[in-house]
Formats: sequence, structure tokens, C-alpha cells
Amino acid sequence: MAIKTPEQYYESLKDLHPTTYILGEKVDNPVEHPLIKHMAAAVAETYRMENDPEGKKLLVAPSDLTGEDVSRFLKFYRSPDDLLTKVRMLKFLSQNIGGCYMRCTGMDAINAVGIEAYNCDQKYGTEYWARLQEFVKTAQKNDVVIFSGVTDVKGNRALRPSQQKDPDMYLHVVQRKKDGIVVRGAKIHQTGSMCAHWALIVPTREMREADKDYAVCFAVPTDAKGLIQVYGRGTLEAQPLQGCDLGNARFSKFSPMVLFDDVFVPWEHVFLCGEYEYAGNMVRNFGNYHRHSHGGCKCGVGDVLIGAAATAAEYSGVGNVSHIRNKYAEMMKVTEAIYGCSVAASVESTETPSGIYTVDPVLSNTSKLYEGKEMAEVIRLMIEIAGGMTTDLPSDKDFANPDIGPMLTKYLKGVDEVTTEDRVRIFRLIEKLAFESRDIVSNIHGAGSPETHRMTILRNSNMEAKKKLAQKLAGIKTD
Amino acid sequence: MAIKTPEQYYESLKDLHPTTYILGEKVDNPVEHPLIKHMAAAVAETYRMENDPEGKKLLVAPSDLTGEDVSRFLKFYRSPDDLLTKVRMLKFLSQNIGGCYMRCTGMDAINAVGIEAYNCDQKYGTEYWARLQEFVKTAQKNDVVIFSGVTDVKGNRALRPSQQKDPDMYLHVVQRKKDGIVVRGAKIHQTGSMCAHWALIVPTREMREADKDYAVCFAVPTDAKGLIQVYGRGTLEAQPLQGCDLGNARFSKFSPMVLFDDVFVPWEHVFLCGEYEYAGNMVRNFGNYHRHSHGGCKCGVGDVLIGAAATAAEYSGVGNVSHIRNKYAEMMKVTEAIYGCSVAASVESTETPSGIYTVDPVLSNTSKLYEGKEMAEVIRLMIEIAGGMTTDLPSDKDFANPDIGPMLTKYLKGVDEVTTEDRVRIFRLIEKLAFESRDIVSNIHGAGSPETHRMTILRNSNMEAKKKLAQKLAGIKTD
Amino acid sequence: MAIKTPEQYYESLKDLHPTTYILGEKVDNPVEHPLIKHMAAAVAETYRMENDPEGKKLLVAPSDLTGEDVSRFLKFYRSPDDLLTKVRMLKFLSQNIGGCYMRCTGMDAINAVGIEAYNCDQKYGTEYWARLQEFVKTAQKNDVVIFSGVTDVKGNRALRPSQQKDPDMYLHVVQRKKDGIVVRGAKIHQTGSMCAHWALIVPTREMREADKDYAVCFAVPTDAKGLIQVYGRGTLEAQPLQGCDLGNARFSKFSPMVLFDDVFVPWEHVFLCGEYEYAGNMVRNFGNYHRHSHGGCKCGVGDVLIGAAATAAEYSGVGNVSHIRNKYAEMMKVTEAIYGCSVAASVESTETPSGIYTVDPVLSNTSKLYEGKEMAEVIRLMIEIAGGMTTDLPSDKDFANPDIGPMLTKYLKGVDEVTTEDRVRIFRLIEKLAFESRDIVSNIHGAGSPETHRMTILRNSNMEAKKKLAQKLAGIKTD
Amino acid sequence: MAIKTPEQYYESLKDLHPTTYILGEKVDNPVEHPLIKHMAAAVAETYRMENDPEGKKLLVAPSDLTGEDVSRFLKFYRSPDDLLTKVRMLKFLSQNIGGCYMRCTGMDAINAVGIEAYNCDQKYGTEYWARLQEFVKTAQKNDVVIFSGVTDVKGNRALRPSQQKDPDMYLHVVQRKKDGIVVRGAKIHQTGSMCAHWALIVPTREMREADKDYAVCFAVPTDAKGLIQVYGRGTLEAQPLQGCDLGNARFSKFSPMVLFDDVFVPWEHVFLCGEYEYAGNMVRNFGNYHRHSHGGCKCGVGDVLIGAAATAAEYSGVGNVSHIRNKYAEMMKVTEAIYGCSVAASVESTETPSGIYTVDPVLSNTSKLYEGKEMAEVIRLMIEIAGGMTTDLPSDKDFANPDIGPMLTKYLKGVDEVTTEDRVRIFRLIEKLAFESRDIVSNIHGAGSPETHRMTILRNSNMEAKKKLAQKLAGIKTD
Repeated sequence: MAIKTPEQYYESLKDLHPTTYILGEKVDNPVEHPLIKHMAAAVAETYRMENDPEGKKLLVAPSDLTGEDVSRFLKFYRSPDDLLTKVRMLKFLSQNIGGCYMRCTGMDAINAVGIEAYNCDQKYGTEYWARLQEFVKTAQKNDVVIFSGVTDVKGNRALRPSQQKDPDMYLHVVQRKKDGIVVRGAKIHQTGSMCAHWALIVPTREMREADKDYAVCFAVPTDAKGLIQVYGRGTLEAQPLQGCDLGNARFSKFSPMVLFDDVFVPWEHVFLCGEYEYAGNMVRNFGNYHRHSHGGCKCGVGDVLIGAAATAAEYSGVGNVSHIRNKYAEMMKVTEAIYGCSVAASVESTETPSGIYTVDPVLSNTSKLYEGKEMAEVIRLMIEIAGGMTTDLPSDKDFANPDIGPMLTKYLKGVDEVTTEDRVRIFRLIEKLAFESRDIVSNIHGAGSPETHRMTILRNSNMEAKKKLAQKLAGIKTD
Repeated sequence: MAIKTPEQYYESLKDLHPTTYILGEKVDNPVEHPLIKHMAAAVAETYRMENDPEGKKLLVAPSDLTGEDVSRFLKFYRSPDDLLTKVRMLKFLSQNIGGCYMRCTGMDAINAVGIEAYNCDQKYGTEYWARLQEFVKTAQKNDVVIFSGVTDVKGNRALRPSQQKDPDMYLHVVQRKKDGIVVRGAKIHQTGSMCAHWALIVPTREMREADKDYAVCFAVPTDAKGLIQVYGRGTLEAQPLQGCDLGNARFSKFSPMVLFDDVFVPWEHVFLCGEYEYAGNMVRNFGNYHRHSHGGCKCGVGDVLIGAAATAAEYSGVGNVSHIRNKYAEMMKVTEAIYGCSVAASVESTETPSGIYTVDPVLSNTSKLYEGKEMAEVIRLMIEIAGGMTTDLPSDKDFANPDIGPMLTKYLKGVDEVTTEDRVRIFRLIEKLAFESRDIVSNIHGAGSPETHRMTILRNSNMEAKKKLAQKLAGIKTD
Repeated sequence: MAIKTPEQYYESLKDLHPTTYILGEKVDNPVEHPLIKHMAAAVAETYRMENDPEGKKLLVAPSDLTGEDVSRFLKFYRSPDDLLTKVRMLKFLSQNIGGCYMRCTGMDAINAVGIEAYNCDQKYGTEYWARLQEFVKTAQKNDVVIFSGVTDVKGNRALRPSQQKDPDMYLHVVQRKKDGIVVRGAKIHQTGSMCAHWALIVPTREMREADKDYAVCFAVPTDAKGLIQVYGRGTLEAQPLQGCDLGNARFSKFSPMVLFDDVFVPWEHVFLCGEYEYAGNMVRNFGNYHRHSHGGCKCGVGDVLIGAAATAAEYSGVGNVSHIRNKYAEMMKVTEAIYGCSVAASVESTETPSGIYTVDPVLSNTSKLYEGKEMAEVIRLMIEIAGGMTTDLPSDKDFANPDIGPMLTKYLKGVDEVTTEDRVRIFRLIEKLAFESRDIVSNIHGAGSPETHRMTILRNSNMEAKKKLAQKLAGIKTD
Repeated sequence: MAIKTPEQYYESLKDLHPTTYILGEKVDNPVEHPLIKHMAAAVAETYRMENDPEGKKLLVAPSDLTGEDVSRFLKFYRSPDDLLTKVRMLKFLSQNIGGCYMRCTGMDAINAVGIEAYNCDQKYGTEYWARLQEFVKTAQKNDVVIFSGVTDVKGNRALRPSQQKDPDMYLHVVQRKKDGIVVRGAKIHQTGSMCAHWALIVPTREMREADKDYAVCFAVPTDAKGLIQVYGRGTLEAQPLQGCDLGNARFSKFSPMVLFDDVFVPWEHVFLCGEYEYAGNMVRNFGNYHRHSHGGCKCGVGDVLIGAAATAAEYSGVGNVSHIRNKYAEMMKVTEAIYGCSVAASVESTETPSGIYTVDPVLSNTSKLYEGKEMAEVIRLMIEIAGGMTTDLPSDKDFANPDIGPMLTKYLKGVDEVTTEDRVRIFRLIEKLAFESRDIVSNIHGAGSPETHRMTILRNSNMEAKKKLAQKLAGIKTD
């Protein structure tokens, strides 16, 4: 049973009893909570696609560990083609979900960790790479959902982990025991964690010797003792709480904070512990992979943004106006560039000693830089095209009111062929696409902030070679 | 009593009994509703400022009708200095309110209507200008709040008012009676209407002879029979409904739809009725004035955006990082340009036959074009500077929970000198500033869409003169 | 001898006697003219690279027609990998030449023509495809330079070819003879034509039945009777005419106008003649290929721009200033995106019935749209980094003057380790890179103008599918 | 004779015998040199305008020193209106000259120096302010041209003046004598110096005590002994040297380097000498004034850019195409914003102790930041609109050649009503506007580089106040 059905996925979550708080309340079954269930539905949709004839072409592939067909979300990247297919898969899913389905963080993390686990083993004779392969094999067999816990709360950003007044501002080992380690700290912006079976915890930055207790990487089930998830509130919550005006009729996103209140992790699930020189590369690998993932998924969301804008324009009778068509092209320019750079980063990938392929960092960070800067403009263009009705239409509850409903239906009609209800639906979708804070902020800060992307580009481009090219053409002797 | 206190303002609203629906419910006292009261507070703040020693310098001026000190929100623009002071007043208020206080639409509308009322009287011997002055005089005396109803629902945008299948898609006169007219239609995006005493209704576009029933301008009290207000839902509603995590601790915005279900208007409050050739100029005047207003108010909001970003950075320990300071400058560049162009549009204003001054349309539309395009970037920069915590922090309710509250307080601490509570407050403010859909969409579509601004610039720039300049310099004979 | 040396290339040009005018003078041996010879040197450099161990990996490949190793500039694109290697080859060459070497237009044209020659043959039983293959085979054997003549002078742009007052504003057949055709017209912006052996003439737009005499495609030697080349003047000509201050010490670009004054073309070199329905696709194919080429070559030039800026900054002592490094990253973002989209357009290419692969049009046009908009910003950033000395330094002649030379050398010194001469050289290179009009305008208009790219993107994106995605997510029934 | 005629201006230059080198040759009468005379013509045009009924309204005003009518280029800014009129004057002149006429640097410098001369006198009992007034009075009487020498060559940018290996990399006092001082150094980018009567030398940066010999400000005639001007070469020089294809038929720009080879300056013309704490403010004042000037002059040039683009489009038959009109609006948006911010910086100016008004630094630097970033885009749009013929048309010499001239005239025709000659002229003007390096680089680096503008904005904006606004709205106690 390496490929689950959506039903099996939901069933499997019932065995988990994560400690969960939502808006101040302890919640027993978070997956059914109105603020959570729409993201669970997005994850479930990936399972549906794994069983769909078209979807499985992208989502299912033979495991290099077992040969068995497994979810691509749980597979190592063993070739440029694996990376290319990942981008296409994420684009395909996002086109159909219109937002996040969270399984890519786990996928990117197992690969990012794998490269350094291997490297560390070579130097120190550790056995992290074997442990990780074992963990992944089991994950593949059960087709589980893994979220990657990367971002620490960080306290004072000007200080390193070991310099913080409170030593817990970065997750760290507080006790080394015979059978495992005890960890403490907090990871934030943990997209979808309440819908996952496992967490794969990765250091959030490069570490120095003094920080070595913070150089820790491990896997842990989401209902481990001491692991507490707290829902992080966002925009547009009144709608799911009231069960109407959802915009995206089925799917949504949330990003909790996950507290590690002295959580025990057995050694078999520890993939780095103290070898601080690998911490930085783990998170850099993760960043590069995850920016590469965004190139696929945000292009897919972009197609929805464009389609929504075009539908709204059409429903208002202005779909083919010259300046609006021009704006469609400007929107596509951005989404296709994001996608194109991720495709190129796959083609120009290189093999690491572990056998895992790593993307071209300049191209994957270029993709993300454009996303960070220009998806905001794509969204702005969507709003510009769709007009003011994207933000302040009456509620479904008003339409249902017999006193005013008929009048609203009359007055909010657009072109003759489209019902007011459908027109309102598309405006609500646009509102969701434009104002779901978790999505918008992910465009900018997901997989690291723009300054990180710039630094990564600078670090990985060969500036000396570029200078030499110029000097030679200028007739300067460069020997 | 030409200047009211906030208390008098609230008192005066109690005499009104507007027909109001909010999320499907008929509401008797909308001003106390959690979704409405924060905007009422913003309006009340303008009254407080009228009585404040510093505030009154900008907000209060002698009426040209009576000589008495009146609210500048109810005054005709009688000089470039009136226009300049308007811009400064709006900037000042927005800096202190962090968003909309809605009284500028009425101010801009009485002036926009006044110019054409005068012109129409000259041609047709009507008495609109005298009526309007009378109306304004009374408004000044009672220091009332007027909202301007401009935007119709518009149906199929490709069709003119008289071509629509449903003749009510633009507000129009359905009956002319001896003592007045009866009007039907719907105005949408009516910012703050539930906090106003009067509506001043202005045609939304230029009209032709066939549309002459749509060329109608009038004032009406907000509790007139047949006038129905329906709350338009936006983002971030769960927070005020739950009474926590507000972001802006005191102020907010809403924009209802206002239905005119055969509302009677006595002739004394009618300022245009059928003289279709003045409809277009009324709304164009209004647009130019209102884009000019935005230059002041959005610069003021911009100062709050910049201050919020800088506070968040400081609270996280990165306030003086080089690339962040660079971003502050980029943000100011935009907000100051918006303001500067509105200042310049005041200086380069011209007197109309009515004695009312009209702003330079090229400069005021330039201001708005930059707002429409670049305020999104200012907001994006604020998010980029502030980081991911702007969107998914736990709720005040979680902090209040004894099980997890202390842990959250521990883990969400930034620099030593700032409490977690204050840090969370600034992130919530940023969330409000970035995701309050009514504000964001107003940046783009308030006072007309960007294409309208471009058209206005083209129409009012002397392109033939520019061509001649070039031709002459090129040595082409231009006779 | 399918691969020529630079010497053989220069030798081969001596057999040509093209009719050539430069600045009003008839010139016998244009390749030695100071305004021409630096582009000939760039072309010769491609020959050198064909014989270079590293260069040949990219520049030389087996012919699918003969199996013999031939120049990639004369090869059909028979696989995604052919397209990918083209992009890499052009990047490599541009990095080393710092500008144009012109051979890509011929390469793109033989492929663009080939696809439609094949299609036309299938429908009409013509033999264009066989003729073209024969022509290419001979071209490969002699390793010749072909330029593609696409852009007509176009007269009044609002009129189609057959509607022009002067019928010659688009090149057309004026006589059909037993042994060939006679053509008349003028092609403009013919980069490097004076350094080429052959012209491959392609229609510049889609044609209708009335335009069928304009639907003509053929090859012709550059010294054919009636073919007249007139040098088009650009910027920075005083420097080569005076033999100093060149900036790029070896290479440059020019773009003549080519007049066809009743030129005879034998049938064996005619590849379309009257089958108007293929004209549009020929030029569209060419455009898509050529935008794809730009993705490689302009990224290579971009590397030189970045290297030049970094060298100038370093020579002035500010190479590592934070805001300057940030600008390097912004420059790379653009150049890498242009490149990445062309790489992706190769990967997502498709086979045509002729067996020639065609690039993904959305991605290749996205690459070009970014080039058209953002290379100007890359250049602006280069100037911003390098400072004012990029534009107004004294001449080499001043440095050679004994009265002032020593003072100039003293005062124009930057950091201690770099001679003034080298510093001046890099500023002159930047001047050349920033102000060589043929290069700058090529960024914008080469391979079609930005509006064409937008239209191509719109035509090739599946907008209906995008609308369906949005509608489905909004909960609208789309059946 | 406080207002000269153009003839008197030319006559007055004959009395000067400046030491001048152009392209390696010593030149006796630079004003007649083909590379210089077109800028002299631009300066002469300002004199014509001083005598023109329309022009004099802007260019002539009563002196506050003598009451006599004088050139505004030699007047202190005594009111916001003086500053406002300056902006309008510069816009007016640039519209008619299409580029630089250089007299604004002297105007801005006398004011910038005046403020600090006054301040220094107050502190140290010096008599700089009286001397400066005397100097200006004489300048007014003779209506002379003054250029301001600000920018030093600077050597290693990472070092302060006194830290440079060669002490002459910033201009400094090498000898203090009884009757005056001797100075050495070099000023670069000295726009139009060869057309001026006087230089007013201003320190280029803030100075510390160790740099006090560099804190020197003085006036000197352009033919002073030891003052050597060396022409700095730019683009488009072949055209004036050949006397054809000029583009701008009458006017152009150049920017020499000016060497001070131990130049003696009598005390009466020294306005700062060692009081280092005023050096920084002098150049900051100058920068703020000069950025303010650019807001007028570059808007005027922008009108020519727009007019040229529109003429080219019209001549090609596409003047009213929708996407082209949209681009006109985008161009105006930029030029009007630049202008608007300078107008606003005038309105919001403040009086200094000297009685000279200083512009609002945030607004004037905002104007310049937009110029630095977006004029490049305005130019790019001009090229995009005008098309490829802006860069590579044959020369006037080709049109004059009887063999090919008639064919060129035939083939380069656009719409029927316009001659080919006129069409070519407009393309040549666009080439000049797009590729005259001195103008383009001035957009970016004139009056300081963009980073300087950002720093100035940050230094002059009240960031603490903005933070307080945000904190208060967030509900944070700010005491």
C-alpha cells in the first residue's frame, strides 16, 4: 500500500492525537475544524491525484530505494528529470487547488538533508544517511505526509543562536540520552502541520562551533509528547467560521506555530546532531529546492489568478478590451518566467556525492526573486482587471435574506448569460486569491526572504569570471 | 454650533434610523455594530481634531457663504491655498488614523457638483447653484457628514446606461413630480455610508441624450424612505467580531452597497436633472478632486506603513541593516511623490466660472497613477521588512490561555527592551495595513481605475504642443 | 572543409564584390572599413571558436543531412537538445565577444523556413523543402555566413503590403520567369550583412490573398546584381573612424539597409512564392526562434555588463559596498531569467511535421519581453554603479598629448593597484555597452517589438483552460 | 546692461582666452569648435529668451541686491515663489532647447554657498557673505555665465580627501598668501564650462578637520592662469564633426574636465577656506537645489521625448494605436511626477538665516530618485514607440548621393503627407535624445547618485515620528 487514497489518508489521521490549539481552545480533532479542514482537503486532493490516471503520471514514480511505485512527494531526486517532473507536478496541482497542499516541504527536506547526511557520514563516520533512507522507506510504504520544520522564532535577529539571552529562541538539544535526544524550541510558519503525520526538523541557518547544540536535524511524529501546535490566525477567517463566502470553494491554507516542549527523539530518527558545519548547507539546500518548487506551484496559482481575472472581466462585459488583454500578457510574463527559471534550474542541476541532484542555485533563486517582487504585481493586476467588486460585496447571507436578496441579485448582474451567483463567486475567489495572507506572504518570504535569494545568487555566481570577460574585451591584460 | 464635538456627532446619529443590513441581518443601530463602529470612531476622530488646537488649524476655516468657522470638509475650494490645505489636512488625519475617515468624498463632491451646477444655470437658467449653496450652508451649520454616491453597479460594462437590459443598472429618475423626483438604482463601494447623515448622489459617467434620465444629481438623508444600506463584506472580519487581534486598535473601514428603492427627493435637493451634458464633467471634476485627496491621505497612511515596518524591524533587532534602510527610502519615494504631485496640482489649480478652484488634472491623475501602481509595492516592502510574523501569529485568545500563553510569550520575544505583547501588536497592525481589502482596493480603484487616470492625463495634456516642440528641434518646418 | 578557419573566412569574403555605400561613399572592400571591420572580427571569432577545443563542443555538430561535422549555425534543430545547445552556444559566444556576431539570424531562418517549406510541399506538391535542404547542404559544406532579411521598410504601418501607395514598401516578386523570379523592395536593420555570403529573405508578416506577390522567400548571394547595401549610421562612430577610445577593443556591430533593385533569383533558391498562407508562420517561427536566441546571447552580454560594472567599482575602491552588491544581484536576476526562459523553451519544444523542433512560444516570448523591458534597467544599473566617468572622459589623444597627458593620468587614477589606462579602458567599455545604439535597440526591437511578444504569448496560451480552472475552484458549474 | 543679448554674449566670450584641449589638440577658440558650438548656442538661447516678451516673464526678475532687472540665473532665492519660478523657467527652456543650457549650476551654487557663507560669518566673523553678494552683484551687472565646479575626481572612493595617496585627488589649498590662495586639483563633468565666464568652485563632500585644506569655495574666471579645460568625449561626435545627421538641429551638450594647476584666487573671491564644518552643507544645499532644478528641466526634456515619440508614430501611421497611447500616458506619468515633486519642494521650502530659501529636501530628492530610475524607462518607451529606425538610418550623405539617394527617399517614406526628409529628421532627433551620453548619465548621476538621494531622504525624514504614529495606532504605549 505505497499509494494511499484520500479516504485512507483521512482514516490515517484519526490515529494521530496531536496537541492542538486554535484561537485559544484546545481542539481534539483539528482536521475537522472549519479553519483547518480546507487545507486537509487540499492534501487529500494530492492523494486523489496519485490515483488519477492523468495525475499519477506526475505524482507517482518508482522508488530508488525499493523499486515500488511511490508518491513523488517522498522520493529522492535522482536525475534532472526528477527535478523537472517535480516542477511540472507542482504546477499541475496548484492549477487544480489554487493554493497550497503543503507536501513539497517534506519532499524538499528529505533531499536537502540527504545530501548533507551523506557528506557528514563521509567525514565523521556517522550513520545519518542510512537512517534517513530507512525513514524515507517507511514513509514511502505508508505514503505519509511530512512537513519540514525549518524556521525558528529567532528572537533578536542580530544575535546568533548561542548569543540569545533566552537559549531556546532556536530549537536545540537540551539532553543527550542513551536512546535519543531531547529537544526544545519553536518552529513558526509551519504550513499545514496539523494535516501531517511527521515533522522533519531542519536547522534554520548556518551554525558555528558555539552553536553546535542547535545543529540538529530529526524526524518526529506530529503527536509526539511535548509537541504542541498553535494555529496562527490569518485573514478571511470569518468566512469559513460562518460557512459561506469562501471564494475557493474547497481549499485553503493555514500555518501554525509548533512548540517543542522537551520532545524526545530516538536516535534512529536523528539525522544531524552537533556536526555544525553541515547545518548551513542543509538549510541552503532546502532553500534552493524550495524556491525551485515555488517556480512550479506559484505558476500554477498564477494560472488561476489569470483565469479568475479573465472570467471576472468577461462576466462584466469587458473581457476583450485591449488594455485588459495587455494586462493578461503582463501577468503571464511573470508566471511563465517563474516557471521557466525553475525548469532551467532542473536542466542545469548537478549530482552530489549522495547521488541526489541539486538544482542550479542561481536559476532557482532567480525564480524566487521574481516571485517575491512580481507576484504582488500579478495580484494587483488581477484586482485592477476585476474591479472594486472584488472586495466589498454583500454576503451569501444577504442574498438569502428575502427582503434584500432579490434586489441584490438584480443589481449585481453583469452580462446577460451569467447568473449573479456565478459572478459573485468569481469575485469571492479573487478576494481569496488576493487577500489570503498566508499565500501572499509566502510569495515574499516562503523559502527565505528576497535578501537571502540575492545573497545566494551572489555567492553562487562566478563574479571573478565575469570581471575577466569584461577586462579582456576592454583590452586590459588579465594574464 | 458649526463645529461639532465627537459626542455631538454620535448623538446626532441617534436621530437617524437608516435601513441597514449586515451579513444577512437587519440592524437597528449600525454604528454600534462591531463591523461598523471602528469606522464611526475614525469619523468621530475628525470631529475631535476640529476641536483640537493643532488640528483645527487644518480642519477649520471660515465659510465663504457665512463667514462663520466651519469644517473644511464642508467648504468650497476658493483658492489654491484651500486645495493645498486640504491635502495637508488629509495627510495629517491619515497619519493619525492609519486609514479612511470618509469625509473627503462629500467635500470633493460638493465642489465637483458646484462647478457644473453653476455652468448649467448659466446655460439653462436653472437654479441648481443656489440650491447647492443653501444645502451646503445648512450642512455647515450642523457640521454633518456627507458621503458622495458616485459608483453605480453598471451591469454590462460594454453598454451605456440606456442600453442596459435592466434600466436600473444606473441610478435614474423614474418619476418627476411637482414637489420632487423619484429615483431608483444602486450605488456600490459607499465607504462609510452608515456613519453619514447625508448622501450626495453624482452621476458615475458621461451621459448622452438617450441617457438623460440618468443625468441626475441630488442630496438625500441616509434614512430616507427606500434607501437601504447593505454591508459589503471584506477581509479581517473575524477579529472585530471576536473583539481581539484588531491591528489598528481603534479604526477601520467598510464600504456598503446602497440601494435606492424608489426614493423621493424634493426639488430643493436636486442639483441636476436631465441636463446630460454636465454629467460627465461632474464625475470628472469629482475624480480629479478625489485623486488629489488621495495624494494627501495615502501619503499619511504611507507614513504609518513606513513607521510600522521600521518598528517591526527594530523590535526584531534589524532596524538599521543597510538593505532595510534602503527599503525605507524606496517606500518614502513613493509616498512623497504621491503627496508632491497633489501639492503641485493645488499650486497649478485654476478658477472656474463658479469661483471654485479646480486642480491641475494631469498632476492629480499622476499622483493617483503612482498610488495605483506603487502603493502595492510599498505594502510589499513593508511585509518584506517585517517578515513572516505579519501573517500567522497566534491570537490574543491563545496568549490568554494559561496552558500555552506563557510559552507563546516566551517564544515570540524579539529584542530585550520590547515586550512580546507590543511586538505582536505591531505585527497585527501590519497585517491590518497589508490585508484590509477595502484599503488596498481603494489604492487601485478608489476615485476611478488606472485606465481612467491615463485617459484623463492624455485628454488634458497638450500633445500637439509637445509634438511641435520636437518637430522644431528636429529642424522640421511646423509653420 | 565543412569548418572554416578565420583566415579562410576572410579569404572567402574577398571573392565577393557586394555593392556597398558607407556615409555617402561607394566602398569596394567594406570588410576593411573602420566602421565594418570590428563586426567582421566578431564573425571571424565564431570561426575561431569552431576550431577551438572548448568552443567546438558547442559550435560544431554532425549534420543531419550529411553526417559530417558542420557549424551549428547551419544546422536544423532536430531535438530539444539542439535548441538547448544553441542557447548555451550563444551565451558562450556573447560572453567572449560582448555583443553581436550575427550568424544566429541565418540559423534561425533556415529552421523557420524549413518548417513551412515542408508544410507547403504537403499541401501544394511544391518542392521547397528539398530545395532548402540542398541549399543548406551546400552552405554547410562551405561553412558560409547567412543573414536573414526579414524586416521590410513597411511605409505606412496602418496599411497592408498590397494597400501601400508605393507597391515596393514590402519586398515582392515583380516578374516570374522560366528560370527564376525578379524581386524588388528593401530590407532594413540587416545586422552584419556586409560580412555575410548569403541572404535568406523571409516575409516580414502574415499575408492575405491580395498580398500574395509579397509572400516570397528565397536565398541570394550578397553580391547579386541589383543588391545594394547602405550602411546605417549609429552612435560612437567617431571612435573607430579615429582609431581610438573603442571601448570594446576588438568587436562592434552595424546594421545596414539592403535594397533589392530588381534582383534575379533562380528557382532553386526560391522557398516560397505566392503560397501566402505560409508567410505569417514563417516569420512567427523565425520570431520565436530568434527570441529564444536572444535569451542566450543577451545573457552572455549581460555577464559582460555585470563584470564591467564590478570592475569599474573595484577600480574606484567601492566593489564591495553593500548597495552595489545588491545591484549586481538585481542585474543577474534579469540576465538569468532571460536565459532560464530560453532554456525552458528548449526543454518544452515540440517536433513539427518536418522533423524540425519548434520552441515553446510562451516561454521564448517571455524571455524576450523581459529583455525588452529590463535589459535597459541592467544597463542603467551598470551606469549607476560605474558612475559619471562612463561618459565624458578625455580621449586617448589627450592622454598622448605631452602637455596634458601626465596630468590626466595623475587625476584619473583610482585605487593604487590599477593603472589609469586600465581604469579608462573599463569606462570606455561601459560607454560602448551602454550607448552602442544598435545593441540597445536590439534589446527592445530585435526579433520583433514587445507588443508582438505580448500578442504571441496571448495567442499561444490557453486562456480558456485558465478560466475553467478558476471557475471550477470558485464552485461555478463549467460542465 | 544687466541683461545681455545673444550677440553680446558671444562677443563677451571673445575676451576670454581659456586654455582648452579638445581630442588632443589645443584649441584657441573653443566656442566655434563643432563639438562645442551647439552648447554655446543653447546658452545663447537663454539670452535670447531673457529678451523675449514671453521668456522674460520667467527669466528676468528684480535683483534683491540692486533692485535692477537681472537674469534669474544670477539671483538669490528669496521666497518660495522664486523657487517655483525657477522650476517653471527650467521646464520652459528645456522644452525649447531639448537638453542642457548649463546656467542652472551657477544659480544653484550661489544660493547653496550663500546660506553657509552667512552661517560661517555668524560663527567665525568671516566676511564671506558680503564678498559673495559683491561677486553676485557684479555678475548680475554683466549678466555672465557661471558654472559650478563641484565634482572632484576622488581617486580611491573608499578614502577621505586627506587619506588619499595623492593629496590632489580633491581640490585643495596649496598655499595661503597675503592677497589670496593657490589651489590645485581637478573637477570633472563640468557641463558647459567652455561657454562660461566664471567658475564657482564648491567642495564635493562633507569634510573633517583633517580635510580642512579641502574645505574651500571660491570663484575664478574661466581663463585664469593654470586653469585648463579638457574636452570629455561622448557619443554621437561623428555627426557634428561631419556637420550632418545632428538630430537636435541646433543644440547639444558637453562636459569637460577642468584642471587647476596651481591657480591663484584673490581673497575677494574666496567664500570658504578651512572652516570644514560648512563644506558638507554647501554641497548638500547644492545637491538639493540642483535636484530641484532637474525636476523642471528634465520634465521639459521629457515633453520633447514624448512629442518626438508621438511624431514618429504619427509619421509611421500608428499615432493613435491604443497601446501606443497608453505608453504616452506612462511617459507623462514620470515626467509630471518629477515636475510635481519639484513644484511641491518649492511650496514647502523654508527660509534660512541668510534669507535664502531652501527647498524641501525629501521632495526634491524624491523628484531626482524618480528621474534617476524612470527617465531611462521614458527613453526606452520612446524607442519602443518609434521603432528600429531610430538607430540605423543612412546618413544625409547617402541621401545626397545621386546613385542611392532617390532610392533611400523612396523606401524610407512613411505616411503620405510627410516627406522622407522630415521623417528621417525625427528619427535622428530620437537617436540624439536616446543616446547622447551626457544627457542620459545626467539623468542618473547629475546632482549626485541615487544612493545619495536615498540617504538624503532618510536623513531628512522624521523616522521617529513615523514609528510613533504606527505604535500609537497599534495600541502600544509610547509615552
